[in-house]
Amino acid sequence: MRPIGRHPDSGGYRRFAWTGADVECRAWFKAQAEARGLAYEVDRNGNQWAWLGDPGAGDAVVTGSHLDSVPDGGAFDGPLGVVSSFAALDELRARQVTFTKPLAIVNFGDEEGARFGLACVGSRLAAGQLTVEQAHRLTDGDGVTLPRAMEAAGYDPETVGPDPERLGRIGAFVELHVEQGRALDLSGDRVGIASAIWPHGRWRFDFRGEANHAGTTRLVDRRDPMLSYAETVLAARREAQLAGAVATFGKIVVEPNGVNAIPSLVRGWLDSRAADQESLDTVVGGVERAAREYAAAHGVDLDVVRESFTPVVEFDHALRDELARILGRDSGKDTDLKVPVLGTGAGHDAGILSGSIPTAMLFVRNPTGVSHSPAEYAAEDDCVAGVTALADVLEGLACT
Amino acid sequence: MRPIGRHPDSGGYRRFAWTGADVECRAWFKAQAEARGLAYEVDRNGNQWAWLGDPGAGDAVVTGSHLDSVPDGGAFDGPLGVVSSFAALDELRARQVTFTKPLAIVNFGDEEGARFGLACVGSRLAAGQLTVEQAHRLTDGDGVTLPRAMEAAGYDPETVGPDPERLGRIGAFVELHVEQGRALDLSGDRVGIASAIWPHGRWRFDFRGEANHAGTTRLVDRRDPMLSYAETVLAARREAQLAGAVATFGKIVVEPNGVNAIPSLVRGWLDSRAADQESLDTVVGGVERAAREYAAAHGVDLDVVRESFTPVVEFDHALRDELARILGRDSGKDTDLKVPVLGTGAGHDAGILSGSIPTAMLFVRNPTGVSHSPAEYAAEDDCVAGVTALADVLEGLACT
Repeated sequence: MRPIGRHPDSGGYRRFAWTGADVECRAWFKAQAEARGLAYEVDRNGNQWAWLGDPGAGDAVVTGSHLDSVPDGGAFDGPLGVVSSFAALDELRARQVTFTKPLAIVNFGDEEGARFGLACVGSRLAAGQLTVEQAHRLTDGDGVTLPRAMEAAGYDPETVGPDPERLGRIGAFVELHVEQGRALDLSGDRVGIASAIWPHGRWRFDFRGEANHAGTTRLVDRRDPMLSYAETVLAARREAQLAGAVATFGKIVVEPNGVNAIPSLVRGWLDSRAADQESLDTVVGGVERAAREYAAAHGVDLDVVRESFTPVVEFDHALRDELARILGRDSGKDTDLKVPVLGTGAGHDAGILSGSIPTAMLFVRNPTGVSHSPAEYAAEDDCVAGVTALADVLEGLACT
Repeated sequence: MRPIGRHPDSGGYRRFAWTGADVECRAWFKAQAEARGLAYEVDRNGNQWAWLGDPGAGDAVVTGSHLDSVPDGGAFDGPLGVVSSFAALDELRARQVTFTKPLAIVNFGDEEGARFGLACVGSRLAAGQLTVEQAHRLTDGDGVTLPRAMEAAGYDPETVGPDPERLGRIGAFVELHVEQGRALDLSGDRVGIASAIWPHGRWRFDFRGEANHAGTTRLVDRRDPMLSYAETVLAARREAQLAGAVATFGKIVVEPNGVNAIPSLVRGWLDSRAADQESLDTVVGGVERAAREYAAAHGVDLDVVRESFTPVVEFDHALRDELARILGRDSGKDTDLKVPVLGTGAGHDAGILSGSIPTAMLFVRNPTGVSHSPAEYAAEDDCVAGVTALADVLEGLACT
């Protein structure tokens, strides 16, 4: 998969949902499924599945992740989970295990939300957490709607919607993912188990002023939205620091975006996450209050729209404990819990699906913690340890 | 010209150099020249000329302006000067004057610099203020070079370069332009004469940090360039206020520009202008010093590049006084100077050419001062007064 969607200048990946790079990733997934004699299918929301055994038998064990990327993302976020799933199946076949439950590998569409601004679209649609009407209204930066984008990629947008029957066949979903922080690096472990996903969301701040000539408009006559945007960026860092949370303005759209024009619009997106709901409310409330003051002081109008929000997700405790038991047993150590259990600030399809079915996650060590960047990295030994751990988990869940 | 390049949503104009909209504007210019029996020609730098009389006779009187626009610009900035030039010629013909000097109307290419980031490319090339090598390196946001863009528009890029012979035929250049401030509105005059153009320039600030996941990267581990950019935006306003100057960050490029990614790069452009060089140096020096401190505090690298700079331009005093005399005489009032003389923070082709030939400018009242915006406006009565004043000036200069 290495060259697909890789930008020659940045070295980062640009595998956005339903683009040519995504279509190439999907062809790769299908070829991997077929090479292993798995039954390949696409569900009504464009997610790809590769089945071993009868999907209709129920209580299936499913693993997988996603293949799309953020702009200039790394090689591991998403693909490591899908590649490790195929590799774990190869490992289980080499072990000559007998499967007592159906097993599937899945590639969820549009996990990163880089193109349409909403993360986990494939799993949200399946779980009924995104309505068909909302999905039809999703539009990318060039004005292309999600249905038109799916169509252009050769998929049928008419069928999108909740998929309870398919989810009802699944007994457990386990997603392997590169860690996006340094907890495993600091504890010296190759693999960890997820406890919870922090509550997190995206808020769009639209600062609207008045476009004007940058050379001839007196400062007192200006309604420059860039100033209140700048003040709000700094307020977000301050509030996050106070609350022990994170808050980031990483995306901005400016109109008209001319060197000699005072902007008419500065649109900034706030991404914020915290260990608990109260802290998150404190941060976002504080940023919004500050932004309203700044905007008023500059004669600028402000709209704040919550574009997405995911409350805290506690992964299924029984499944989590079962994973810890399996991996603890296989580690050959003498305590019950050998594998660290850790929280994360990142959203995942496993988090979305946890409202419908038992889900769990495995993390693979990331020595720098860098993520969503071409510098994202995991050592080969650690990736192999991840595959072995995933194979152990699948054997424990599907072969008992 | 009204519909050409007008964006249906914003109502603003997007007439960028050598694009389809620009080609339409140029076809309009050619048709206007031919409809009046003027000799049409394109110079080696793609500027359009319409001649009445023999260009080779020398000491020509030239008027005109530009037809390109900033992103979502107004209807008047540029086109008012060209349209008024044709209208003034019609007026002079109605007056049945006798021309004693050749007269020309000109449309200078790429005055706004919206596409290639450098203003007044057509006049700069003609005046030798931009070398052929520099022009060949100009590249737009899509990576298209100026030569390729000219070629795509049907112009020959091989010929670009200094044009001293053509400029040597010109005795005076008078550019009419909508005012980009409220000085005429405040003084109650329809038309004014330019005294000088403030020194002004563009500086690019490249803040380079490290792309990372916005949800999982601890604040202390971040090298987020958006923070130092935001602090620098506020420093620019502060420094401009202290110096009685203007400073604006109106254009920004962010990489990767993802909602859940800490940026690797925030590139902001500073536009600054002041009444004198010392004030401008104080502002830009102060902003750069502050930006370097902020960047260092966040572990961010900073490059500052001066992309363009124009020193103060004093318009030719003799020509300016001649315009004041002509318009004062025709106004029927009893003092010598009837028409206000005012400075401006905006650059113009007339400013570029003032280094080579005597140039002057007329401003038409702008009741709101709004410029570079769809809301830019001039009342029809004031536009007609501008045409009459320009006709008076041309008659005074070319028919004596």
